[in-house]
Amino acid sequence: MKIGERYYRTIWPIGADAVEVIDQTRLPHTFATVILRSLEDAAEAIKRMIVRGAPLIGATGAYGLALAMREDASDAALDRAYDVLLATRPTAVNLRWALRRMCDRLRNRAHAERAALAWAEAAAICDEDVETCRAIGEHGLVLLREAAARKSGRLNVLTHCNAGWLACVDWGTALAPIYMAHDAGLPLHVWVDETRPRNQGASLTAFELGGHGVPHTIIADNAGGHYMQRGEVDLVIVGTDRVTANGDVANKIGTYLKALAARDNGVPFYVALPSSTIDWTLAEGGSIPIEERASDELLKMTGRLAQGGLATVEIAAPGSPAANPAFDITPARLVTGFITERGMCAASEQGLRSLFPDPRK
Amino acid sequence: MKIGERYYRTIWPIGADAVEVIDQTRLPHTFATVILRSLEDAAEAIKRMIVRGAPLIGATGAYGLALAMREDASDAALDRAYDVLLATRPTAVNLRWALRRMCDRLRNRAHAERAALAWAEAAAICDEDVETCRAIGEHGLVLLREAAARKSGRLNVLTHCNAGWLACVDWGTALAPIYMAHDAGLPLHVWVDETRPRNQGASLTAFELGGHGVPHTIIADNAGGHYMQRGEVDLVIVGTDRVTANGDVANKIGTYLKALAARDNGVPFYVALPSSTIDWTLAEGGSIPIEERASDELLKMTGRLAQGGLATVEIAAPGSPAANPAFDITPARLVTGFITERGMCAASEQGLRSLFPDPRK
Repeated sequence: MKIGERYYRTIWPIGADAVEVIDQTRLPHTFATVILRSLEDAAEAIKRMIVRGAPLIGATGAYGLALAMREDASDAALDRAYDVLLATRPTAVNLRWALRRMCDRLRNRAHAERAALAWAEAAAICDEDVETCRAIGEHGLVLLREAAARKSGRLNVLTHCNAGWLACVDWGTALAPIYMAHDAGLPLHVWVDETRPRNQGASLTAFELGGHGVPHTIIADNAGGHYMQRGEVDLVIVGTDRVTANGDVANKIGTYLKALAARDNGVPFYVALPSSTIDWTLAEGGSIPIEERASDELLKMTGRLAQGGLATVEIAAPGSPAANPAFDITPARLVTGFITERGMCAASEQGLRSLFPDPRK
Repeated sequence: MKIGERYYRTIWPIGADAVEVIDQTRLPHTFATVILRSLEDAAEAIKRMIVRGAPLIGATGAYGLALAMREDASDAALDRAYDVLLATRPTAVNLRWALRRMCDRLRNRAHAERAALAWAEAAAICDEDVETCRAIGEHGLVLLREAAARKSGRLNVLTHCNAGWLACVDWGTALAPIYMAHDAGLPLHVWVDETRPRNQGASLTAFELGGHGVPHTIIADNAGGHYMQRGEVDLVIVGTDRVTANGDVANKIGTYLKALAARDNGVPFYVALPSSTIDWTLAEGGSIPIEERASDELLKMTGRLAQGGLATVEIAAPGSPAANPAFDITPARLVTGFITERGMCAASEQGLRSLFPDPRK
């Protein structure tokens, strides 16, 4: 996607020794990039959420492993890189998927070949992610065209967190259909959930949609149910960090509440995902590990001062503790359908198997 | 309630010419009071949310009308004061209730008597509110005792926004039972919804509970459903700004989402209210006016700087618009019961009539 006049991905190689990423902790206030030169850099970038979003975490993990191979291509180094990167964030499964794919590619190859192979494989993962998101966008576009045809006036889509191009390598998952529908001239408007506590909606999704010229309105996470009650949401599309075999969905904390409100108001609730987000090893969502993050994410807030510059302020009552679970589980029963790179399916094992009959366990 | 060593109400008369209130826009960062000397001062205090919370808005409205009578006790001035104050905030009905009660008291009395009568009536409204909240607390305490007896370990109560003593004259509605249960030695813990966009949970409820020594944890509004899924919420108690004759509940935006999650997880969902919050003139919640507030409440945030002092920062993507509905409607079907000054009842017309058979329409 473009930022100003320049076309960007969220991650790109610099020669064969480093990768550059957009520093998403500084958006929307400052556009800056960070260069990752080592396994440790990559692990830190994922942990600190310089990069975030399930597909981009996977892509960064792949490059992190490739960077490790440039320093030491031994089996022990491969295992260590896998472990270090996998431990960075527990909920999204794309990271594990990407790291396993890298290891499968490298394990039985000569050590001398590994660095180059790893670099190429990480690049392939990125290129495929772009293609996958583009395909998700085209399948979702069909859905949005149908929804737009059923009503007059603007089509109101609600989304939670950021599942746009910043969460992937390009395009996005939940936002890919929105970009394509907007480009195709559909009269779209997006309700952007602020997405506390890290505000990925207000800071990243709004930044993306504004940059692309898509009409949108930021709302408090509390407000989505009200707009659904008022008939002002036609459908919901969100991304996901892990889908279990039965179709349960782990996604940013608060997604479950929107799915409940959608069900209560007859609003279709869709989840967009690449198949790398499916965890065939888990039967249902209750066994997905839910990351607990630092309470400061809730208790402090960074923003722009009127006089210029940034400041971080403490916003809550002094001394009060906070808890910060980063994801929740939306049961498959609340999901109208999945939008994948192979098309749409029901949120069930049968639905997933109909599109992906041969998952590599 | 006490702040430090001093006992406070949220509003109190200074002689017979002014009233003093706690400035709730400055909490939790600064404890300060504001003196209201005129109708205009009172109207501004309500509009700017220096005072907020349905019962306290009613009490401040009453004193606002009394202040108006000190300047001009004519019928025209009475009507004007009623109109100016009623227009300050549209959703809570206690304001209308209090203003009508004041007018009923004054209308057929000699102009010369009105100022003194109004002052006494406003004081009576405040005293009765304290007594009403105390009674709500005692009825709710029975409920909490029963819930605590059914489980071992701490009793987890979730609340949204602030329906504590800061929302009333003293005690609070939703928090009154919590204070009494804590004082009675029940092992209580409160999940405090942050309550975006004005953060009344993180700033006011946490301030209150911390001040009283009640164990509590601030969570993002997004997180309540997750904790309910995990069995970590035993019951929900919230306040309300208006209850219609059929038991529908207007309360702070996001309440509806918590009620949906409570229903989905079998968690009892209670609403605490004085009978002045019941609007017998409206059949159901869909006709309650929902206040739309300034988008800056969502786009900017004020807090404490590490180096001392306060700052306001802009937190969202520059140029993105925001919408800010302040309340939503929780349908009666999602409410387990009402806790009122006369005891508990079902969230239905029959339930309300069983306790209040003779509402003055």
